[in-house]
Amino acid sequence: MRQLFITVLSILLIGTLSAQQSNIKVDQDRLEKRIFDLAEFGIQPNGETERVAFSDADIEGRNWVIKTLKDYGMTVTVDPAGNIIGKRNGNDPSLKPIAFGSHIDRVPNGGNYDGCVGSMAALEVIETLNENNITTNHPLEVIIFPNEEGGVMGSRAMAGNLGKSALGVVNSTGYSMGEGIMRMGGDTTKLKEAKRDKGSLAAFLELHIEQGGKLEKEGLNIGVVEGIVGLNWWDVVFTGSANHAGTTPMNARQDALLTAAKYIVAVNEITNSFEGTQVGTVGRIKAEPGAPNVIPGKVTASLEIRDLSLEVIQKVYQAIKKKTEQIAKESNVTVEFLPLDTTAEPALTDTAIQNEIESSAKALGLSYKYMPSGAGHDAQDISRFAPVGMIFVPSKGGISHSPKEFTSAEDMANGANVLLQTILALDKKLD
Amino acid sequence: MRQLFITVLSILLIGTLSAQQSNIKVDQDRLEKRIFDLAEFGIQPNGETERVAFSDADIEGRNWVIKTLKDYGMTVTVDPAGNIIGKRNGNDPSLKPIAFGSHIDRVPNGGNYDGCVGSMAALEVIETLNENNITTNHPLEVIIFPNEEGGVMGSRAMAGNLGKSALGVVNSTGYSMGEGIMRMGGDTTKLKEAKRDKGSLAAFLELHIEQGGKLEKEGLNIGVVEGIVGLNWWDVVFTGSANHAGTTPMNARQDALLTAAKYIVAVNEITNSFEGTQVGTVGRIKAEPGAPNVIPGKVTASLEIRDLSLEVIQKVYQAIKKKTEQIAKESNVTVEFLPLDTTAEPALTDTAIQNEIESSAKALGLSYKYMPSGAGHDAQDISRFAPVGMIFVPSKGGISHSPKEFTSAEDMANGANVLLQTILALDKKLD
Repeated sequence: MRQLFITVLSILLIGTLSAQQSNIKVDQDRLEKRIFDLAEFGIQPNGETERVAFSDADIEGRNWVIKTLKDYGMTVTVDPAGNIIGKRNGNDPSLKPIAFGSHIDRVPNGGNYDGCVGSMAALEVIETLNENNITTNHPLEVIIFPNEEGGVMGSRAMAGNLGKSALGVVNSTGYSMGEGIMRMGGDTTKLKEAKRDKGSLAAFLELHIEQGGKLEKEGLNIGVVEGIVGLNWWDVVFTGSANHAGTTPMNARQDALLTAAKYIVAVNEITNSFEGTQVGTVGRIKAEPGAPNVIPGKVTASLEIRDLSLEVIQKVYQAIKKKTEQIAKESNVTVEFLPLDTTAEPALTDTAIQNEIESSAKALGLSYKYMPSGAGHDAQDISRFAPVGMIFVPSKGGISHSPKEFTSAEDMANGANVLLQTILALDKKLD
Repeated sequence: MRQLFITVLSILLIGTLSAQQSNIKVDQDRLEKRIFDLAEFGIQPNGETERVAFSDADIEGRNWVIKTLKDYGMTVTVDPAGNIIGKRNGNDPSLKPIAFGSHIDRVPNGGNYDGCVGSMAALEVIETLNENNITTNHPLEVIIFPNEEGGVMGSRAMAGNLGKSALGVVNSTGYSMGEGIMRMGGDTTKLKEAKRDKGSLAAFLELHIEQGGKLEKEGLNIGVVEGIVGLNWWDVVFTGSANHAGTTPMNARQDALLTAAKYIVAVNEITNSFEGTQVGTVGRIKAEPGAPNVIPGKVTASLEIRDLSLEVIQKVYQAIKKKTEQIAKESNVTVEFLPLDTTAEPALTDTAIQNEIESSAKALGLSYKYMPSGAGHDAQDISRFAPVGMIFVPSKGGISHSPKEFTSAEDMANGANVLLQTILALDKKLD
């Protein structure tokens, strides 16, 4: 009887607690203010902010984040790769942490929203839990990854995939990654210690702006990210014969640029000819010798293909290659596809987490759609050792990596609320 | 009776003389040796020659030409623009001179034949006349034009069209045209004195390598040049929207490079769609920002159209412009055609001189065809004030402006013989 009473009481208490938890909301104004506060680090006379990784503004912004996390009562460390990790204890120390976060570094001439929304929403989630006196069962970790824009440096180190050669890469600040890591209080000789074991996190969640125009166009609040597309790069080299544009008749030309032009059209047509959301892009081209009165003898053009499936990338690539070889042959020009180092494997998000994101959005009365992420994110590397989920909020006009980047306070708060509720739901469901 | 006797005697003498003159030939080996001698000026350790206008090699080569012309008994002057002019008296000082020549300056990394064949053939013609004790009725002028490759400088000055602004243009030697003129013994303050009056020459003849592959392909000895094509240049600017290649779906792109690619294909198709020998070329292209993972927002591509008729150039241009504007509209990209300063009006050769070139070739048993010159030549500017004729000899493989440029000794001698016989024929026919 006493046992039954306690059980009933517990159920009632837990029910009330759950009802309370599902009612708590982030503070929209506070979240937006935090975005503007962060934008002060690196602000320029024209009102725009520059905060490339390793810059003074980046270091100052990081210090502000560290102080804020500490003010929230978290235990904050910087790992050897420069990842800022804020820990909040849970009721059950034997459970693995639920982690969430993003990055605060920016591309040159970028905007205020990109990684900042996910980072500031992570802080807002902690403050909201604090003011509602909620302690989760799982420990929580807020992770702010360094130098996402320069090659997802921090998350790659956590996945154990930050190679030595990457440390020599210098960004627009003039610092190499290695030097930047030292500036941020990391230690390049101890990078291996930044590596996380497989299964060491219960889950990782990242809220991010869409950086595309689908949500806005369709009037939707939330994107449930199915995965982060993989990408492959090639240099496509056309070799014809440079010759005098005045004396070489049209039918005697081996025009590498004309052939490359037909290739560019083919990339578009072939990419569009497959079902799905794959994208194919030629963004870089160089024609040699490059004078208006000389038929180009050599052209180097890029090829990038992205999709959630490596198989689809290969299928599109093979079709483009076959067609281009045929075009080149007809034009008496040779073509070579040279794979470049820059590749990223697709990273699928965890379906159970997708479901929780969907349920949270539904419960909050928000519209949503499942979609791939066309851009790379820190979650991509985290997925190598933990189940991940990603939540997208709309980007106005699909604009990103630009001072014109914009996401409304309401959209940011919607995303942060979905993040908060997904964390709470996972906290209950995950071991 | 005495009068009749003298008349008959004159006719017999002239007949004998004409027969003698039509039998004289240039010395093929001597002509080829002269080409090799000239190639010594500027020869490099790898056996190739560099002799860009105003270089030490150019000055030395010019001095050698001047000395050679003087050794032939000619009166040699250098006009204020740096043109080397060798004069040989004729029987009738009241007649206007018949002039011929070409240039000895070369493009960087060029070949031994280009303007050198016409220049050395001019010297060979004088030596051949000397050794056959032939004095023409008209005075003869050998003209070696300076800096043809850098903008037909000498001939343009003779036509009175060398603008002050051109004098500031620096070539690969580091000297400006103005400085180069001073180096060559010209005088930039007296350029007007280099100008020739309209009608001051009875004729001007230029022998040149074809720089294309038509004669070799058709197995012909001589090209009777109908005229030098005119050309127009444009910059064609495509403006779309630079965007993230991962997050921007294929159907939401404003890809300036894709549109430019369709333009390049259209330039080729439209140029080929007209009857005639016009050529259309896109030789230069720049895509911005120019990264493999960014959809190009801006592309600047060149357009060059050449033809013997300005009307045809305009017709082809209008068709290309119309089609490109349609392509751009369909791609949600804007396009602008910006005309560039670099234009040259077509220059037709004199039909009477064409006929004499044809007759000379026939009499020498050489095959020939009428053809336009796709490249610009000094004769182009000379045609502004004198009747001109041009003789082409085959270029092996159509290659020019390259160390691989080649014309056989026999082909050069064929051209020089046609030049010599045309001079002799014009000497008899022209006032």
